[in-house]
Amino acid sequence: MCETRYAPVTEKVVEDLVSILGPSGVTTDRGKRAVYSMDETLPGFERDYIADVLCFPENAEHVSAILKYANEHIIPVTPRGAGTGLSGGAVPVFGGIVMSMERMNSILEIDKANRTLTTEPGVVTSEVTKAARDRGLFYAGDPCSGDISFIGGNVAENAGGNKVIKYGATGAHVLGLEAALPDGNLVSFGGKLRKDVTSYDFIHLLVGSEGTLAVVTKIILNLLPLPKCVTDLLVPMSSVESAVRLIPLITTEGGVIPSSIEFMDRNSIHNVEEYTSLKIPHSGAAAQLIIQLDGMDRKQLWSDVERIGDLCVKNGAVEVFVAEDKNARDRVWRIRKYVAEEEWTGSMPILSKEDIVVPSSEVSAFLARLPDIAKNHSATYNAYGHIGDGNIHITIFPDGIDPSADLHALAIPLRNELYAYVKRLGGTLSGEHGVGLKRKEYAGIFMNEAQIELMKRVKRAFDPNNILNPSKLVP
Amino acid sequence: MCETRYAPVTEKVVEDLVSILGPSGVTTDRGKRAVYSMDETLPGFERDYIADVLCFPENAEHVSAILKYANEHIIPVTPRGAGTGLSGGAVPVFGGIVMSMERMNSILEIDKANRTLTTEPGVVTSEVTKAARDRGLFYAGDPCSGDISFIGGNVAENAGGNKVIKYGATGAHVLGLEAALPDGNLVSFGGKLRKDVTSYDFIHLLVGSEGTLAVVTKIILNLLPLPKCVTDLLVPMSSVESAVRLIPLITTEGGVIPSSIEFMDRNSIHNVEEYTSLKIPHSGAAAQLIIQLDGMDRKQLWSDVERIGDLCVKNGAVEVFVAEDKNARDRVWRIRKYVAEEEWTGSMPILSKEDIVVPSSEVSAFLARLPDIAKNHSATYNAYGHIGDGNIHITIFPDGIDPSADLHALAIPLRNELYAYVKRLGGTLSGEHGVGLKRKEYAGIFMNEAQIELMKRVKRAFDPNNILNPSKLVP
Repeated sequence: MCETRYAPVTEKVVEDLVSILGPSGVTTDRGKRAVYSMDETLPGFERDYIADVLCFPENAEHVSAILKYANEHIIPVTPRGAGTGLSGGAVPVFGGIVMSMERMNSILEIDKANRTLTTEPGVVTSEVTKAARDRGLFYAGDPCSGDISFIGGNVAENAGGNKVIKYGATGAHVLGLEAALPDGNLVSFGGKLRKDVTSYDFIHLLVGSEGTLAVVTKIILNLLPLPKCVTDLLVPMSSVESAVRLIPLITTEGGVIPSSIEFMDRNSIHNVEEYTSLKIPHSGAAAQLIIQLDGMDRKQLWSDVERIGDLCVKNGAVEVFVAEDKNARDRVWRIRKYVAEEEWTGSMPILSKEDIVVPSSEVSAFLARLPDIAKNHSATYNAYGHIGDGNIHITIFPDGIDPSADLHALAIPLRNELYAYVKRLGGTLSGEHGVGLKRKEYAGIFMNEAQIELMKRVKRAFDPNNILNPSKLVP
Repeated sequence: MCETRYAPVTEKVVEDLVSILGPSGVTTDRGKRAVYSMDETLPGFERDYIADVLCFPENAEHVSAILKYANEHIIPVTPRGAGTGLSGGAVPVFGGIVMSMERMNSILEIDKANRTLTTEPGVVTSEVTKAARDRGLFYAGDPCSGDISFIGGNVAENAGGNKVIKYGATGAHVLGLEAALPDGNLVSFGGKLRKDVTSYDFIHLLVGSEGTLAVVTKIILNLLPLPKCVTDLLVPMSSVESAVRLIPLITTEGGVIPSSIEFMDRNSIHNVEEYTSLKIPHSGAAAQLIIQLDGMDRKQLWSDVERIGDLCVKNGAVEVFVAEDKNARDRVWRIRKYVAEEEWTGSMPILSKEDIVVPSSEVSAFLARLPDIAKNHSATYNAYGHIGDGNIHITIFPDGIDPSADLHALAIPLRNELYAYVKRLGGTLSGEHGVGLKRKEYAGIFMNEAQIELMKRVKRAFDPNNILNPSKLVP
């Protein structure tokens, strides 16, 4: 976008915001501003950008009034969920207002007859899941950060997670949205409806738009019947290739779409053992898979488990551990959670965390090429993630690079090579972590000029003054 | 939209189009133009609008070149699938070019490893289904018009149909699109990918946009494992209320999401018996349901069938007919197909065909109010359709109205009353037939000014000269 000239946040602006939100809804405390200006992107952007003022709206009218004011005065507004983002999406590049959604934290309704849950955006995702479960229903969104992320952030990023292969990403569960446009107008799309062609599909345009088009103030989610039984298989594999080859067979030969197929390479498993007290069976195996099956009937599920277990053994599994009760299942998933966390519980600097997606048929080619790409940039890596969707997370560590070096700058040539290869395989640069600030300069690898121009035109259609989360997503 | 001044289609324009497409790709034959200027909307618009010239592109480059030319010369272009639309979406309101997609009729690839099917837009939907099935895979889109509609039209309208309750509408199956923008630029979104957050979700913005934003030239569809067994239950019910009450119980108590739950009221069934030779058991029942269950395991499915059958009997079913083999199943669905067809095999004039959606919890209230609304406008009706989604089709017949009257004009006050009531119930004006030309003046009942303005701005962002299917969808 062409650079916008933003107005400074003067004392008068802060006073005006206080008159909208009351004194408890606004702060300029420096320590708080610093905390609310970063997310979990590694390496972080915390040295570079800081909000001038923090706002804490308590309802849609507050959100609307803040935006109306900011739009009239040309002050940038960065909406913020729980700050668990991994692409700098909540980082206030031009300072201005950071608008935290944390006080809009009520689940408004669970409607059993319509199988819907209506919520404000600042509710922690796992609370949504629990509230549905308590009523015998199932919210199928399941981002790995669900214990800390907000449902509004999940919507803004179209968060994926562990159950996409069977149930789809966050957007697949959204039936309705209320949102404030950058000019402050409140709009409402969809409802407790499973079909609707009344308008352009603005629901799915807002989902994944990273807070650049509107600020979501209410979400209506689709719920499903709660699966009555769930079983996890932990499957150490003799080679990465056999792991990758096994995955489509689970569906084509096994006749089942599992609720999860997760992958962890040997490096990921080793790091968990090194940095935690966890002992993982067959930790020397080339790769480990977690395959989750769910269903309504225990006998039927057990017959699926046996069939899929046999299929694993015939196709390179070293062993198949079956976890049926909650404790055993929690132990399996703890491994997967630690894999994603070791980099920040550990002490090593991170060059970049990547989130590429390739067609399932190209996962093998991609993983085979990855060691060379890393080596070209003096890096090592862990690869893991949602392999059932072709979505691989790669945590890249600098190897023999001065840790005080500018890691942001060093990551650029690495990403260029990585993304160019992913593009050749028919893939793309992010499956669920988002483009944000981190990846927006790479859009040209994946989009032609007409597409980039279209993004800019749609951004302008929503936000002509470019006040809402500027410098994100749109190249 | 503000009215655009379009250029006339002169002989020179026709010559220029011939130079793009060759002589066999362009015609101005009056009979053909008349046929290609109408769809299946009843009452039809055929007296009012006619194309000046028909174009038959054979590839994306043709589509692109036609649009580029039309955009430079400000000539309206109406893209057209199989013409099975029910809302006037393919009717050329300002004349100009009708662009039929019928020659772009190849299925380009079925990729078993990635479970995708890549197709041109002019392929008949049932051919897509068949091609997938021949490879042991399942295309879950299933519009009632599937034997005649084009897959490109399904995408343009976000067609629903019989399997939405379990599998979602057309948009839920689209992984990637190639499209020509109104300025002729070709763009491509998504791919053989099950996750992608690289850009705004233009895929789902184009799905259901009724050909007003871009012309789709290639579609990548998600396929599923083919269910190994399917069973249909035909369930005559003692009352409409018990039918409506039964539906959520199938999921909450029965623990199953059926692949279809269809509803036909007594009038619908009577008309089928009157206009066809079909004898329908318990045709005097207040309503009939078709409940379809599918699965991978025959024993498991049979246990579902028994459980759901018992549930039906306990909740007002007069009888439960179980259709397992293909012939029996075809007989059940023939009833449902004839219900949708009787109005045009029959001889009665149609005042309007409606396609409203309400939350499942409000279906009962809606059906209870319908007789009064019809009576207020001297009309009778059949109600039937995808009740599992809260989507009711209503075919409305004028009762004692001079059949030569202006039915379009008579339908307006009826729709105003109908839609206002639907709005009160939290519903909307169309679930799958679209807004098109027929319903765009009613948008104000369902959207506020900011939403309508947003639609106009997004339309302008894609199509600043307003050449693409003008006067549709956008109020």
